[in-house]
Amino acid sequence: MIESRNIGGQSRLTYGQIGGGPGSFIGPVHRAAIAMNNQARIVSGCFSQNLEKSKETARELDIDLNRVYSSYEEMAQKEALRKDRMDFVVVSGPNHMHYETAKSFLEKDFHVVCEKPLSLDLTQAKTLLKLSKERKRLFMVTYTYTGYPMVREARHLVRSGKLGEIRLVVAEYAQDWLAEKAEESGNRQAQWRTDPRYAGISCCVGDIGTHIENMVHYITGLEIKRLSARLDTFVKGRSLDDNAFILLTYENGASGSYWASQVAVGKENGLVVRIYGTKGAIEWEQENPNELRLSLLGAPQAILRRGNGYLSAPAKSLTRLPSGHPEGYFEAFSNLYRNFCVALTRFEETGTLEPRGEAEDFTDVLDGARGIGFVEDCVKSSRLEGAWVDATKISEG
Amino acid sequence: MIESRNIGGQSRLTYGQIGGGPGSFIGPVHRAAIAMNNQARIVSGCFSQNLEKSKETARELDIDLNRVYSSYEEMAQKEALRKDRMDFVVVSGPNHMHYETAKSFLEKDFHVVCEKPLSLDLTQAKTLLKLSKERKRLFMVTYTYTGYPMVREARHLVRSGKLGEIRLVVAEYAQDWLAEKAEESGNRQAQWRTDPRYAGISCCVGDIGTHIENMVHYITGLEIKRLSARLDTFVKGRSLDDNAFILLTYENGASGSYWASQVAVGKENGLVVRIYGTKGAIEWEQENPNELRLSLLGAPQAILRRGNGYLSAPAKSLTRLPSGHPEGYFEAFSNLYRNFCVALTRFEETGTLEPRGEAEDFTDVLDGARGIGFVEDCVKSSRLEGAWVDATKISEG
Amino acid sequence: MIESRNIGGQSRLTYGQIGGGPGSFIGPVHRAAIAMNNQARIVSGCFSQNLEKSKETARELDIDLNRVYSSYEEMAQKEALRKDRMDFVVVSGPNHMHYETAKSFLEKDFHVVCEKPLSLDLTQAKTLLKLSKERKRLFMVTYTYTGYPMVREARHLVRSGKLGEIRLVVAEYAQDWLAEKAEESGNRQAQWRTDPRYAGISCCVGDIGTHIENMVHYITGLEIKRLSARLDTFVKGRSLDDNAFILLTYENGASGSYWASQVAVGKENGLVVRIYGTKGAIEWEQENPNELRLSLLGAPQAILRRGNGYLSAPAKSLTRLPSGHPEGYFEAFSNLYRNFCVALTRFEETGTLEPRGEAEDFTDVLDGARGIGFVEDCVKSSRLEGAWVDATKISEG
Amino acid sequence: MIESRNIGGQSRLTYGQIGGGPGSFIGPVHRAAIAMNNQARIVSGCFSQNLEKSKETARELDIDLNRVYSSYEEMAQKEALRKDRMDFVVVSGPNHMHYETAKSFLEKDFHVVCEKPLSLDLTQAKTLLKLSKERKRLFMVTYTYTGYPMVREARHLVRSGKLGEIRLVVAEYAQDWLAEKAEESGNRQAQWRTDPRYAGISCCVGDIGTHIENMVHYITGLEIKRLSARLDTFVKGRSLDDNAFILLTYENGASGSYWASQVAVGKENGLVVRIYGTKGAIEWEQENPNELRLSLLGAPQAILRRGNGYLSAPAKSLTRLPSGHPEGYFEAFSNLYRNFCVALTRFEETGTLEPRGEAEDFTDVLDGARGIGFVEDCVKSSRLEGAWVDATKISEG
Repeated sequence: MIESRNIGGQSRLTYGQIGGGPGSFIGPVHRAAIAMNNQARIVSGCFSQNLEKSKETARELDIDLNRVYSSYEEMAQKEALRKDRMDFVVVSGPNHMHYETAKSFLEKDFHVVCEKPLSLDLTQAKTLLKLSKERKRLFMVTYTYTGYPMVREARHLVRSGKLGEIRLVVAEYAQDWLAEKAEESGNRQAQWRTDPRYAGISCCVGDIGTHIENMVHYITGLEIKRLSARLDTFVKGRSLDDNAFILLTYENGASGSYWASQVAVGKENGLVVRIYGTKGAIEWEQENPNELRLSLLGAPQAILRRGNGYLSAPAKSLTRLPSGHPEGYFEAFSNLYRNFCVALTRFEETGTLEPRGEAEDFTDVLDGARGIGFVEDCVKSSRLEGAWVDATKISEG
Repeated sequence: MIESRNIGGQSRLTYGQIGGGPGSFIGPVHRAAIAMNNQARIVSGCFSQNLEKSKETARELDIDLNRVYSSYEEMAQKEALRKDRMDFVVVSGPNHMHYETAKSFLEKDFHVVCEKPLSLDLTQAKTLLKLSKERKRLFMVTYTYTGYPMVREARHLVRSGKLGEIRLVVAEYAQDWLAEKAEESGNRQAQWRTDPRYAGISCCVGDIGTHIENMVHYITGLEIKRLSARLDTFVKGRSLDDNAFILLTYENGASGSYWASQVAVGKENGLVVRIYGTKGAIEWEQENPNELRLSLLGAPQAILRRGNGYLSAPAKSLTRLPSGHPEGYFEAFSNLYRNFCVALTRFEETGTLEPRGEAEDFTDVLDGARGIGFVEDCVKSSRLEGAWVDATKISEG
Repeated sequence: MIESRNIGGQSRLTYGQIGGGPGSFIGPVHRAAIAMNNQARIVSGCFSQNLEKSKETARELDIDLNRVYSSYEEMAQKEALRKDRMDFVVVSGPNHMHYETAKSFLEKDFHVVCEKPLSLDLTQAKTLLKLSKERKRLFMVTYTYTGYPMVREARHLVRSGKLGEIRLVVAEYAQDWLAEKAEESGNRQAQWRTDPRYAGISCCVGDIGTHIENMVHYITGLEIKRLSARLDTFVKGRSLDDNAFILLTYENGASGSYWASQVAVGKENGLVVRIYGTKGAIEWEQENPNELRLSLLGAPQAILRRGNGYLSAPAKSLTRLPSGHPEGYFEAFSNLYRNFCVALTRFEETGTLEPRGEAEDFTDVLDGARGIGFVEDCVKSSRLEGAWVDATKISEG
Repeated sequence: MIESRNIGGQSRLTYGQIGGGPGSFIGPVHRAAIAMNNQARIVSGCFSQNLEKSKETARELDIDLNRVYSSYEEMAQKEALRKDRMDFVVVSGPNHMHYETAKSFLEKDFHVVCEKPLSLDLTQAKTLLKLSKERKRLFMVTYTYTGYPMVREARHLVRSGKLGEIRLVVAEYAQDWLAEKAEESGNRQAQWRTDPRYAGISCCVGDIGTHIENMVHYITGLEIKRLSARLDTFVKGRSLDDNAFILLTYENGASGSYWASQVAVGKENGLVVRIYGTKGAIEWEQENPNELRLSLLGAPQAILRRGNGYLSAPAKSLTRLPSGHPEGYFEAFSNLYRNFCVALTRFEETGTLEPRGEAEDFTDVLDGARGIGFVEDCVKSSRLEGAWVDATKISEG
């Protein structure tokens, strides 16, 4: 079932990390996700803006202290000069620094893995997109939820025409952690996510609305044509949105409705995607990720479950455990890295970036840029009192 | 648990029915719903436009054939003259005749129960509203789903402040029976529902969108302030809408999103209402009506179930069976009639219509008119390409 | 969908009832279940041991007071002499009187519908079985849960071989209403159910264990070969069982496990049946009766739902409402009566009792007798400290 | 949320592994589970009976090839002599070799982690138990499912008296992977699990029945007093059991029913535990491990979910991700290792094994021995045609 993924002992990939020091949440998740595949090992880092803290983490990770740096600029600079320079960098520091950090490493020809959001505005995102093409570097943006096997199955079903032509998308991502004024109770994440200086122009759409946008695009390939958004701020004194209702039309004529909320009491991390075509429909819930519900016209609903022989190759290839042994968020995260490392290894052998096949599939800088465009469109529409606006198009090149 | 509801043997209420002849679906449901309470018995009718068919039904129901009529006008006329005239009339004929039929009986001072929709346009609806006030008659519009005990519990929870101030409403009513062109496969209901001559200006919003509007209003009492609607027609050649996305704001500052669809493959009769307040939230699904999910901030979600001692009086009073013995659609329907008959009996004893308490609670002509206004608002917004429009206000008098 | 079921106005069936007076739970349920079909009307009764209360009920039901009796013996006697004698009697009085009551009416050649349990011991049950054959009378025992359409679907799937050969049965019926000493808190039903004088040799197995036994037999047709039972009494001072674990083998080589409990905290009316064959399996839950889960080897689980076109004829024929409009306990109960009345009408026309086809299918005196045998077997095994005992066989004739 | 767990860079624990070479399923799971905590690193191994394959795995894992051995005996011998000898060994080879392997390492004073089952018979199990005490070594047996946070919550609720006195245990572990004769289709695991030479006296009870036994004991602490088991072999030509029904009584007077099956079509890995007390009940399902259902008498059922503030300290301490981000099988497995490593580190600092607190809690050699006794008791009862037998008692010392 689970297999060792390395391409060979000595040639293993190496990486460095920005962020992920003491107290960080997502930083160690990146490392654990990579460790599960045994395809790459960490060799350098700037884990904190405080060098001592950074070294503390390095010691825990058995990293040579000579490769611990006091800033991302220094790290990019110095790692670039090493003969045994790392293969890629993981950018997991604060959101408002993603852009500058990623840019520095691209300019030194490192491959990049970057936390979402890619940047604070579209101009920055386009710069990174362009730079990665010029420098011919792999650039993954970690939309974690696309790493679930049953999301791959959903994508396979839609793309293979099982549902017919898509008519409707109804998706939501509901949480409740900002239902009260958490930013005033010492919750650090709440503080920066609700602060425009660090979070940019949107809290709710930027943080979780983009996951809806990405997931729907990932599964269906539908391009948004126009959208109308209503962003609300329900908690008094908060300056960014904590709830958003968005209506959409797609280029193929389908219609959609997205709901993102951080004030929906009782919801934990409720990303739910439902897609309806002329012949069938699917439903997937992130909190129950090993299942995918498939309805075909005139037939009973079928519950597809991870790990079974009746699934498609894409879903099977990302499965580590037999059916009935739950996989979760870590495994989804790890799957992104697995495909990234396969693509990177092949690139190092062949020198070609494209096309990436199923085994090298991951959300990349183009997805990241599209997400930034989506946030800007939503904010724009909402400021126009929900007027329908044309969707920003991001071209590949 | 279940109890006989009559106020006494001889004084039982009597009624007549328009519609409900051979082949009718909803007509017999009205009769069965009434029969379950044993509060009223049928004594007259015009069950079909064909008198012979009408008599056939009358024979099955043991009705005196002298009280079977060839038209609703004749029935209103002649029943009004009888000493033993019926107490109320059930209007369950074709939708486009609801208005004229109800009006005829009101003018002869009969109490009226009318299927939804109340009428084809708002002017008609207002006429009925006004007339019922003038004639001082009870007028129930059968929004069946409000008869479920757990909907009463939901209402109780919201109205008693358990959820705090309401911020969000997310509701949907999804079906798939019009996902293909059923109106061309001999499906009579599909034929008239998609035909503007019989269905009026909307198919999907008119038929099921109004149930969302009514249910949300029933539970929360929120008044819609403005709305933006996108109505789609996905099946080619169809002239009315088969899907609708609607965004709303309410007078109290809350926001909402409604989705109504007749083309959502795999959905049968999926009315789902979710309401989020500052302190708590509830979820209710019509297809699983004996449950109500309650989330309070910081506490585990609780699953409230019909028939239990911890429920409120309104939920308990409409319960017929012990917990764990499922009640369904018939019982919900019957509950509306139960309360209607209690109110009617009290009216006959006291001569006062208002106020009606919990035990006399049912959706009435005002709800029916509000529904018609909602449909008109949605169609108006959609024709303006989703512009936000002010909601039509229906005043009580 | 729903249709009038009468065979014609004047020839409608008539019935009388024993029990069902003021305060009764199940008595009015029988009447409501019959009323829903409009196939029979009540004309006589002995609703209570108190004649005045009996008359009170009669008045509410518009019954001629001349046909209200002070005892079941008087009723059997006098009704038998009437020219317009009723067609059948509904025996819904206290359990310990079922036998004598049913016997009295059989001896006067009335058809009988009897609440479960049929009698307090097997000898009585066999007497009724024999008598009904001799007198050539229809005799229904109301195992309500067999009336659900999806139970009919389950039966169809098993009997048609869809699951292959049956290997395993795992069934349970769990409640919690006797988890505390309800018989000392004024709960009348708890009082008689825990009292051997009225309940016989078993409380839990007799009341709900028999529903498991009947349901499994109804769906599968499997004959029990041997069983081993452990009956427990968890509430101190109670003399009958309130929990039972039963292991079984069937004549075809399958094995089974039944669990019946009245002390399983949190359970309301949890009858759940799971059947596993060589090729497939089904699961059905009484509290969610409109669904049936079907698993076939190597395929995703399918959720079959009432009211859909893909179901079998037996499931469809007992359906009243479109899919997604929940049906419940009343409708299941009513379905038994529907089939009974069809069989009775045909019998009155043709004079032949057997064979009864699908449309005349109901649980009868043979099922009732088998249930009594099962209770005796369980008690016997438990008294032998769980020794395996041969199952009592009830022959049809 | 997730934190680095190391006690410091250089002093990190080291381990070696028996089994886990190319093609192994569970071997890499052990390594991944350990890697997630970053508390120990692998330094030696005998991954396969084929030395070349063993070296292949070693290369992938960056292990010094001098520490790869051709047999477990050689490894125990040689590792014992090294100055940098590993801290513990992971025994994940074939089941029939667990005993000899574990014994060899204990005799060289290594701490041991051993896959379930501990041994093939009780005598062996007792030898290991005794030896681990004499040598004063930690000995974990990996009953993975006890590592789930919500199992810890379940245990906390039961042990803290929330459910009152326990009356009933109803548990099952159902799979379908042996529903057909998989051992003849090249399924290696099916081959050895159904072969008495490698699997011992039982297939189904030994493989999964023991998980039920362990889980119930882990949560409740109940000691089995007597049991009656019926083991079946449904697939022809198979010599060991593929289904088992087991009834039990516990020392405190409670009763239980366990069902283990490998032929339950549609079941994947369905371990479900339900525990009923005088005041409350809990339900937990391995396939939905982030939830725990709690019912208290007279209150609505509550759904407790991992990662929330209302949970107990034991549940919280084993949580890595925020609520709503699913954790699964790997994390449960990893939690066992986390606690093992904490205990081991403390032992190395203090020299005392007992008592282990909550943070050092893991299933150990005593649990392993109890499991072997349970299997023997079940087989014994089944051979006596389901006679009730006294449960084997394993004393701690």
